[in-house]
Amino acid sequence: MDQEQGRRWLSTALDEARAGLAEGGVPIGAALYGPDGALLGRGHNRRVQDGDPSAHAETAAFRAAGRQRSYRGTTMVTTLSPCWYCSGLVRQFGISRVVVGEARTFHGGHDWLAEHGVEVLVLDDPECAALMRGFIAEHPALWNEDIGEEPEA
Amino acid sequence: MDQEQGRRWLSTALDEARAGLAEGGVPIGAALYGPDGALLGRGHNRRVQDGDPSAHAETAAFRAAGRQRSYRGTTMVTTLSPCWYCSGLVRQFGISRVVVGEARTFHGGHDWLAEHGVEVLVLDDPECAALMRGFIAEHPALWNEDIGEEPEA
Repeated sequence: MDQEQGRRWLSTALDEARAGLAEGGVPIGAALYGPDGALLGRGHNRRVQDGDPSAHAETAAFRAAGRQRSYRGTTMVTTLSPCWYCSGLVRQFGISRVVVGEARTFHGGHDWLAEHGVEVLVLDDPECAALMRGFIAEHPALWNEDIGEEPEA
Repeated sequence: MDQEQGRRWLSTALDEARAGLAEGGVPIGAALYGPDGALLGRGHNRRVQDGDPSAHAETAAFRAAGRQRSYRGTTMVTTLSPCWYCSGLVRQFGISRVVVGEARTFHGGHDWLAEHGVEVLVLDDPECAALMRGFIAEHPALWNEDIGEEPEA
């Protein structure tokens, strides 16, 4: 896929990430696009807002899209490299492409996805990275909780 | 962990699977147990009931447990070998052990989890397998949807 379309779609995920930050949550957003470019679902991390540890951004967007008979040709766009949980989601459901805003502040499973046939585009977007850097600096314990990092002894 | 404890905990997941079947849903159940043996959360697949494709049993149990600062020493018990999505959940959050009711009707990511340091116990339980065999025979399209298998052409 071309970078320009990836960046256009990333703006939806970024809007979600900003909304999450404004709500006091983890600023990660995602959107699922259909093969024809229609927006199927969008969402952001809701750990803080809903007390729901499963509400990672990609899962929130996937849930918002409702039941789909096939994910062939769909694209998951996310502001941050997907963790193992959300990478597993992409692989299990056969989502064809993943657009990653940035993979500097967290390196998830996008290489594993590429090895297993998913088309991966990493955009290295500075705003996505800035959102995460600011959040991690302010709320390190919350961030570690969100990715299952053990608390320091 | 010993098989007897695994079987005791599996009965909670099996109760969930039966409840899901009674509701007309996919009969897979799960439960998350703490290091001290306390039940942290339980749930079952809710694709049909809630129209929520992310509500796999393990995710439902994880969500029901709410926010936890650490998953060290916890055990995810599930009636069926966890798919990539739910295997990713276990790996990302550092859940220490997985008890699998059966892996005959679906072989998910439990070998991958074992390779990555998760303690895995597969019980090969006949009732878990019978529930899935009956469900798959009656609702093959729904089952394929639940695991992201493409519809037949």
